[in-house]
Amino acid sequence: MKVAIMGYGTIGSGVAEVLEVNKDVIAKRVGEPLELKYVLDLRDFEGDPIADKIVHDYKTIVEDPEVDIVVETMGGVEPAYTFVKAMLEAGKNVATSNKALVADKGADLIATAKANNVNFMFEASVGGGIPIIRAIQECLTGDVVEEIAGIVNGTTNYMMTEMSEKGSDFDDVLKDAQAKGYAEKDPTADIEGHDACRKIAILTSLVAGRHVDYNDIPTEGISHITATDIKYAKAMGRAIKLLATSKEVGDTYVARVAPFLLEPSHPLYNVNGVFNAVFVHGNMLGDGMFYGSGAGKLPTASAVVGDVVRMAKHVNMNIKIEWHHDKLELADASQMENRFFVRTTSDKAAVEAAFGEVEYVDAGVSGELGFITSLMKECDYVAKSAGVDVLQMIRLK
Amino acid sequence: MKVAIMGYGTIGSGVAEVLEVNKDVIAKRVGEPLELKYVLDLRDFEGDPIADKIVHDYKTIVEDPEVDIVVETMGGVEPAYTFVKAMLEAGKNVATSNKALVADKGADLIATAKANNVNFMFEASVGGGIPIIRAIQECLTGDVVEEIAGIVNGTTNYMMTEMSEKGSDFDDVLKDAQAKGYAEKDPTADIEGHDACRKIAILTSLVAGRHVDYNDIPTEGISHITATDIKYAKAMGRAIKLLATSKEVGDTYVARVAPFLLEPSHPLYNVNGVFNAVFVHGNMLGDGMFYGSGAGKLPTASAVVGDVVRMAKHVNMNIKIEWHHDKLELADASQMENRFFVRTTSDKAAVEAAFGEVEYVDAGVSGELGFITSLMKECDYVAKSAGVDVLQMIRLK
Repeated sequence: MKVAIMGYGTIGSGVAEVLEVNKDVIAKRVGEPLELKYVLDLRDFEGDPIADKIVHDYKTIVEDPEVDIVVETMGGVEPAYTFVKAMLEAGKNVATSNKALVADKGADLIATAKANNVNFMFEASVGGGIPIIRAIQECLTGDVVEEIAGIVNGTTNYMMTEMSEKGSDFDDVLKDAQAKGYAEKDPTADIEGHDACRKIAILTSLVAGRHVDYNDIPTEGISHITATDIKYAKAMGRAIKLLATSKEVGDTYVARVAPFLLEPSHPLYNVNGVFNAVFVHGNMLGDGMFYGSGAGKLPTASAVVGDVVRMAKHVNMNIKIEWHHDKLELADASQMENRFFVRTTSDKAAVEAAFGEVEYVDAGVSGELGFITSLMKECDYVAKSAGVDVLQMIRLK
Repeated sequence: MKVAIMGYGTIGSGVAEVLEVNKDVIAKRVGEPLELKYVLDLRDFEGDPIADKIVHDYKTIVEDPEVDIVVETMGGVEPAYTFVKAMLEAGKNVATSNKALVADKGADLIATAKANNVNFMFEASVGGGIPIIRAIQECLTGDVVEEIAGIVNGTTNYMMTEMSEKGSDFDDVLKDAQAKGYAEKDPTADIEGHDACRKIAILTSLVAGRHVDYNDIPTEGISHITATDIKYAKAMGRAIKLLATSKEVGDTYVARVAPFLLEPSHPLYNVNGVFNAVFVHGNMLGDGMFYGSGAGKLPTASAVVGDVVRMAKHVNMNIKIEWHHDKLELADASQMENRFFVRTTSDKAAVEAAFGEVEYVDAGVSGELGFITSLMKECDYVAKSAGVDVLQMIRLK
């Protein structure tokens, strides 16, 4: 069986490496060898073992009936979408690691795959090596998934872990993460939560069976988190983690991406460094958690190859995925209840006038007060907080 | 599509409950409703909603061509094996939660299912609601699984957690676990590690693709662990957990079930109470961990129903499972290296004469010494330990 890779960057070259290093076990599992026939890239990679497989025109792959399986690891919506769509329409199975493509065009490409009796799979698009998509699609099928909470961005989790362990400031940790290659030169998509937002949109679409527009999800990143916030978190015995969350409300879901203060008993509390983890609560299963490398060349490539093997075992069979075009209207996030940790320059009288009884947090920081509100709706918090000067607000989980 | 349940105990009645409570989402995922037609049990369950579905002879199910899917939740090898085999031979798909059956007859029943173009699935047989079997079979297919370490017995994990948190003695914790229904009246299978042994035999068979005889796996339980051991564990900053382990060695695996002393940085360190978790290391994936309810009526039933839904979507297609009849000769566990924590009544001179340089652990216990050896083979530990009076030995992980 012949395979093509589109995009020979970090993940694409990882896929080639996994196919080569583990070729014997993969052949055993598939029932025949998988042979890499083409690598599509603008560059030539002279001297690389795959140099003779390089093609520059995606139509070479589209038009070759020998190719059954195509891997898309280019990133971004275009031209990935055009290429993937053409492959599916040509009767080829496609596996991708591209969350931007899946969040934007998932329902469309799933329908295209179905219409052409092939498969479009995207395990690597959320949580890298963590098989959370297969778990939702193929394992929790006897359950209604009532809640998802994920640490799905390794860059920001590394940064929050460093800030927590070393007491460093955000800017210093960002520079360190960039130096180590964990954060990109333009880190916006990670630190502002956009990446996590696309991932929870994908997971929510899968559990709801309908399309979630990631633009509808309220999203905060971690760029406003300071060393002082970490001091307060420690005083509370909690950890600050950027979570991508989704919760069943009536017949829909409510989603939010934001930093949360987690208790030590929460399964995600100990997920540190570049690791990712996704917590799920099913109405029958109860609590579950999936943990692993959420990014990196080989873990992500491992997930892509897992999809490739699965598709190789289902070449003439579309595996049903419930993710329809019709848009899911998310519930109003401002109606959701939380407890809120607040830092303020206002005095106790003003705090209590605004919020009533609160729980003060002493982190030894002078010139301000830190407190935790009672459980209230987000919109009520917004209204009440108008009565105090807020330096910072972080939700409790 | 019609379903039958064999064995209306805790798990079997849970399966009926999941099928009923979540019938709408299940019908959506399958594409048609799943209807419970028969419940096989010796008892009658008068007044129960399923009373009119009770049958006492498994042949009623075998001979009904309407039944496509059968759930086996009777437990034990016989008569479950006879019944399951007959169902598969009659062209019916079977899902089971029965680890004794799977550990003993897995290869046989997988081959029978294949020969009859149906499926035999057993997700619920290891780790209850944790989808570890599907992860190994369907996700880590681009990987060589190099290591598995699981907390796969909720009873013993609950007991170890209680001993650790309360400093209680083994016997008191066992009585408490029995009172709460977490331990059986005859707790041998759990506390002596037999249950965990069958589960790691199943997981190792799946990653190796060949049959592992659970009788070949060196197995210790937790009944020899004392409150004094817990004191030492705390002094080391470690936790004692009953682990079921398996590791690739050359072209085979080595397996062991025993209590281990885990460091706080290990992903399994924080798995407490009745929860289960399985750590896996793939040669491409790196570290992964799956966490959830390992037992209990609904989590286990959720996993069974996940298999039922999967089989309902593959009624005329055998999904290949690599687990052949030919026996895998496990590597010699006595050749594996560990560091060993030892408690002894011998003096330092004897300890150092036997083991050379060791790391002493001060837990404030008088009349004995606690120490950690350097890394050495198990057989070397056994030889050296002849030189001291050993009160206790626990391996470090």
